[in-house]
Amino acid sequence: MRGTRSIAVRMASPAAAGADGASGAEAGGAMKTQIMQPALLDALQQVARAAPTFSPIPVLSSILLRMSRDRLALSASNSVLTIRAEVPAADRAVRTDSGEADSPDRQRGIVVPARYLLEMVRKLPACLVELELPNEAAALLTVRAGSSLFRLRGLEPDAFPDITPIEAAKWSLTLPNGLLRPMIRGVVFAAAASEMRPLLCGVLCRYDGHSLRFVATDSVRFASRSSHLLCAQGSAPFETVIPAKGLSELARLLQDEQGETVIAADESHIRFQTSLLTLQISLLHGTYPPIEGLVPSRFMAEVTTPTAGFLQAIERVTLLAGETSIVHLRVGTDRTAELLSASAEIGDVREDLPVSCLHGDSVVISFNGKYMADIVRTIDAPDVLLRFSGIRTPITVQPADPELSSVYLLTPIRTAAQPFD
Amino acid sequence: MRGTRSIAVRMASPAAAGADGASGAEAGGAMKTQIMQPALLDALQQVARAAPTFSPIPVLSSILLRMSRDRLALSASNSVLTIRAEVPAADRAVRTDSGEADSPDRQRGIVVPARYLLEMVRKLPACLVELELPNEAAALLTVRAGSSLFRLRGLEPDAFPDITPIEAAKWSLTLPNGLLRPMIRGVVFAAAASEMRPLLCGVLCRYDGHSLRFVATDSVRFASRSSHLLCAQGSAPFETVIPAKGLSELARLLQDEQGETVIAADESHIRFQTSLLTLQISLLHGTYPPIEGLVPSRFMAEVTTPTAGFLQAIERVTLLAGETSIVHLRVGTDRTAELLSASAEIGDVREDLPVSCLHGDSVVISFNGKYMADIVRTIDAPDVLLRFSGIRTPITVQPADPELSSVYLLTPIRTAAQPFD
Repeated sequence: MRGTRSIAVRMASPAAAGADGASGAEAGGAMKTQIMQPALLDALQQVARAAPTFSPIPVLSSILLRMSRDRLALSASNSVLTIRAEVPAADRAVRTDSGEADSPDRQRGIVVPARYLLEMVRKLPACLVELELPNEAAALLTVRAGSSLFRLRGLEPDAFPDITPIEAAKWSLTLPNGLLRPMIRGVVFAAAASEMRPLLCGVLCRYDGHSLRFVATDSVRFASRSSHLLCAQGSAPFETVIPAKGLSELARLLQDEQGETVIAADESHIRFQTSLLTLQISLLHGTYPPIEGLVPSRFMAEVTTPTAGFLQAIERVTLLAGETSIVHLRVGTDRTAELLSASAEIGDVREDLPVSCLHGDSVVISFNGKYMADIVRTIDAPDVLLRFSGIRTPITVQPADPELSSVYLLTPIRTAAQPFD
Repeated sequence: MRGTRSIAVRMASPAAAGADGASGAEAGGAMKTQIMQPALLDALQQVARAAPTFSPIPVLSSILLRMSRDRLALSASNSVLTIRAEVPAADRAVRTDSGEADSPDRQRGIVVPARYLLEMVRKLPACLVELELPNEAAALLTVRAGSSLFRLRGLEPDAFPDITPIEAAKWSLTLPNGLLRPMIRGVVFAAAASEMRPLLCGVLCRYDGHSLRFVATDSVRFASRSSHLLCAQGSAPFETVIPAKGLSELARLLQDEQGETVIAADESHIRFQTSLLTLQISLLHGTYPPIEGLVPSRFMAEVTTPTAGFLQAIERVTLLAGETSIVHLRVGTDRTAELLSASAEIGDVREDLPVSCLHGDSVVISFNGKYMADIVRTIDAPDVLLRFSGIRTPITVQPADPELSSVYLLTPIRTAAQPFD
């Protein structure tokens, strides 16, 4: 053991402290901070998602560490997304060895390979970890914990992308995480995966002064979630398109976060900020396709069925549907409904659906079973309402709930075969 | 719902039952059995490990089902390994509809794609599942559960490899699973992974009439575990070489199995049988390299260190050791020991080792850190004993326990550098 260390953050070399008048200025000299291993590992795991762990370009699979008097900031970035996590220093006395009062703005930084830092911290015992930038001249990070001493070579942080300040926010809004997370999860799956139409890889985010709406579509399926904001910390109406991949990361990071998220945007970026995490996404530019009038208003048939059972039945029927995932649905006027898929080589499968409420005519319609499962998976009501307005018109899927703030559309597939005989 | 079904196994067509004089004869006619979904899924998951799920040759990624009066047997096979699991039919009344007494030997079989059957059963609710071979003419498996009806196309079972009877066992032995499993785990990692020297991909299994010994080596590391069998259900001395991959699967299958395993072998196969599982492995042929005299008997230094701390230290030091995994160890006569690794691009790491017992001279030696970690991971004693007889002679690693039934050797790496300065 190399003795105990009780100093959370200190400037080891008084001579090297230098002038630090400017806000956020890089100060010289050695600098140390101490963090408990579980907190450091959590923050690293959150941030490292933005950095591809195995990238051919080393700087892209790196993490930027910035130490200041009372905290460590970690950030990682790819071309679209930057994630920053702040970790308060362990609650030991914060003091300097330099004899002079330490400026809260003084900081030093280093860029180190994400993979090595993450693996290293993962293997450390759950004890106090001391991070030190010992030498002004060399980009070297020293990590001490228990009986371990790591020295990791890095790069100077100058060229590394970090969260940039949003100087003049065009738009800002504060939302509870319990509302934001399901809104994101409810639409991101429907965004296009291919870059053929780049705007469709994004989520349309529209705020009219009262309610916030997220829309995504890959032109086969369409997802929309709205939320009326009772006590939104006001903002002017606003509309933008946010890359779906960035929003998915945000939903993942908000998983265990209580509290709320402050959203701010300018012309080119949107930033989501919680107590300790900041996520910044580059916005997509262009005109999103018109979304008005897409949802049919007249229906030839309506069915209500329990959500959980419908999802499981869809998943089972899709298993044998082959690569096309074509699933056939028959709804009879005798309150029966049946799902079917068949492939010549593998076999076939039928599922009886319990239908709890039925209006209208009988229907035989075919659709992509995987896409339907994606939709039903995000419906958090006990029953789902399926509405049909024709075999060539999108199927409307909604929670069977009087307050219809979610609506999904799925374009049917035209098949020559008569699946039900 | 298609009504409840209370018949566990029946012969649907009395006319098609035919003569079934021979033991295990394939009987005609429809046949049904009922199994609870969790038991069926467990058995399928165990068996499917022997069948590569995505194989270009369909029959190799298949599962053979054989129904007989009171049980379902599932088996899958690759060129080396066959796994068979038996599932007793659910405890409903077993009866036939045929009016005649059903022979216990009557059985029907089908070969179906492992992937579809496994996914299908995984997605079924945890209820009674009815499996039926409805038609003598077509290889078709019908699966009914809850509101689902699957019909899966298959092949006739004639050409599918299955467990073959060991007619004249050269050797047999019964071992508690609690003894067999750690013996396998303790050596299989040291077998060669490459097929360059096929015999070294196997585990030498030697029984001298009193104790059983497993040995594996890839010529850089060597692992040996012995166990004195107090109440072995006798057998003549025996020696064979068993493919390590097959033994690894056995150890995995024994994970949750209490009880004991009956081992029987002939010239070409070895079979391990528990209450419901049978695993058959094709033996390797050839003369295993001599293993006598490999373990050094005179040592220049001996160190005892806590196993858990040593393993974690080795894992951390190996992190920055680069692709060669070269780790350096220094043991001083002043009861200090230190691990070190360094790579020019990434950085370096040092670990102090707590040494609880030391005899002999000081040592500086280098070895493959991953290989050392593999060895230390299998040592279940609180302390590990490292013994050195020279920097070019294998390091001996053993549990620091008076009863030394395990012994590991690791060949050191010769390096030009002086790592400790």
